[in-house]
Amino acid sequence: MTGAMTGTAIGFTGGVLDRGDAIRHDPAAFAALRRDPAARLLVLDGYEPAMAAGELGWTAIDPGIADGDLVLLGLRDGTGHFARLADGPARGRSFELIAALHGLRAGEAATYAAARSVLDWHARHRFCANCGQATAAFRAGWGRACAACSTEHFPRVDPVVIMIAEHDGRALLGRQPAFPPGRYSALAGFLEPGESIEEAVAREIGEEAGIAVTDVRYVASQPWPFPSSLMIACTARATDDEIVLDRNELEDAIWVPREVVRAVLAGEPGPFLPPPPYAIAYTLLTAWAG
Amino acid sequence: MTGAMTGTAIGFTGGVLDRGDAIRHDPAAFAALRRDPAARLLVLDGYEPAMAAGELGWTAIDPGIADGDLVLLGLRDGTGHFARLADGPARGRSFELIAALHGLRAGEAATYAAARSVLDWHARHRFCANCGQATAAFRAGWGRACAACSTEHFPRVDPVVIMIAEHDGRALLGRQPAFPPGRYSALAGFLEPGESIEEAVAREIGEEAGIAVTDVRYVASQPWPFPSSLMIACTARATDDEIVLDRNELEDAIWVPREVVRAVLAGEPGPFLPPPPYAIAYTLLTAWAG
Ligand SMILES: [Zn+2]
Ligand SMILES: [Zn+2]
Repeated sequence: MTGAMTGTAIGFTGGVLDRGDAIRHDPAAFAALRRDPAARLLVLDGYEPAMAAGELGWTAIDPGIADGDLVLLGLRDGTGHFARLADGPARGRSFELIAALHGLRAGEAATYAAARSVLDWHARHRFCANCGQATAAFRAGWGRACAACSTEHFPRVDPVVIMIAEHDGRALLGRQPAFPPGRYSALAGFLEPGESIEEAVAREIGEEAGIAVTDVRYVASQPWPFPSSLMIACTARATDDEIVLDRNELEDAIWVPREVVRAVLAGEPGPFLPPPPYAIAYTLLTAWAG
Repeated sequence: MTGAMTGTAIGFTGGVLDRGDAIRHDPAAFAALRRDPAARLLVLDGYEPAMAAGELGWTAIDPGIADGDLVLLGLRDGTGHFARLADGPARGRSFELIAALHGLRAGEAATYAAARSVLDWHARHRFCANCGQATAAFRAGWGRACAACSTEHFPRVDPVVIMIAEHDGRALLGRQPAFPPGRYSALAGFLEPGESIEEAVAREIGEEAGIAVTDVRYVASQPWPFPSSLMIACTARATDDEIVLDRNELEDAIWVPREVVRAVLAGEPGPFLPPPPYAIAYTLLTAWAG
């Protein structure tokens, strides 16, 4: 299943830019690439993209923008594609934004996801966590360096496990208080230092629903740019079905039979509303139900 | 394969402490737990553990240690197990240390890995990346809060993909300049914002060895506490076998037939020395060869 899902319509995957790792280490090549008249700058209003006809908006690069204010998103046919550092951090995600991104041609949302995560990281990490002094972007925008203590900092990616526990042909789905009315989805939580994916899955299901699991299996993964997670979707086998809710995390949790999940995903009415298609929870439920 | 590997001897997995998430949100419960005469403090000399008879060393908690200088590693039979913040960051890993940790009873190295990663994170993140002011530990040592700008910071876990590309029954193995003489291992690299696990695997193999791959499959994962990675082991199918080395990353790369990998893992002489058993590269090679 894992391999077969690669390249299918998992939200925020399928980007087509070559990240151009070599250019990150070559400031002269970077400077030449951005001075190329063909070079493209992602059009953003704050963190909101301009979109038309299924594509992101791009424009020429103002020569007055400093090299250190540009992030090299990547190359396409030898042309550099850049984003400009923002004035401040991104605000919370809007579901309208996410839905709009999924109206883009395949891979465009992935380009936006990378840009948004990196720009927001710069805005939230202008100072050195090691010594408190101001830092400056380097490596074509893929790091920040501290002149005071020589520490180099790189963009964070926070792994999150998201999973369905199965018991007797039913999936464990939970409802966070912030969800839209009726929605239930896979449980999820941040992976912590000192644990594997499989251990994080077991811990989170135990903490949130009081359910013990075994036989954790990886299904698929997705970058999630709010602000910068790696979503790692798994299934697991529950050893019992008695739910003990952590009410700080979940408002409710339910066991849903496979045929009911399948019907809901097919658009039929049921006991819950599913997660949106761009979320890997949808991919995971689809894989489990199918 | 994935599920079956869970719980087997993957290095730094199998920890037995309950992380006690609820206590992180309850300072009174945290204070009571650390005052319990049975509470245990991990014995460390800098970042080096005391070890005896296959177990980590533990001692009583000096009442003079401030609550804010203690990290709750977790509970066992209701007893809190703690580590004390260190005076400075950890130095690079020593292979002797790692080998010694693997002489521990199952799961003990996992406890050390979590402690080391979190303590080292504190030492390297004493200031707020958002505003530059000093921060203080909170949440039982699982975060740092900034009084100046109210930003909360949490320990980093950096996902790393590590993978074997296969072509015609042979595995692609590479040699980093810093490796001990003769050693070859799976290629590896940090996953970046805006990419899935599968995309990171393809990008890294392309960058380091010039090989295009498809059909990426997850095999297993491992926490790696030097300083705080999540190693994600995968296989992939190479579409050709002509290696173009990135000499900044790799000194050499070779294709090794499955039966040769199997023989080397069985201790027979061969064209390369394998990675050590505590590294997930060993798990990955074993899974691929078997
Ligand atoms: Zn610094
Ligand atoms: Zn601050």
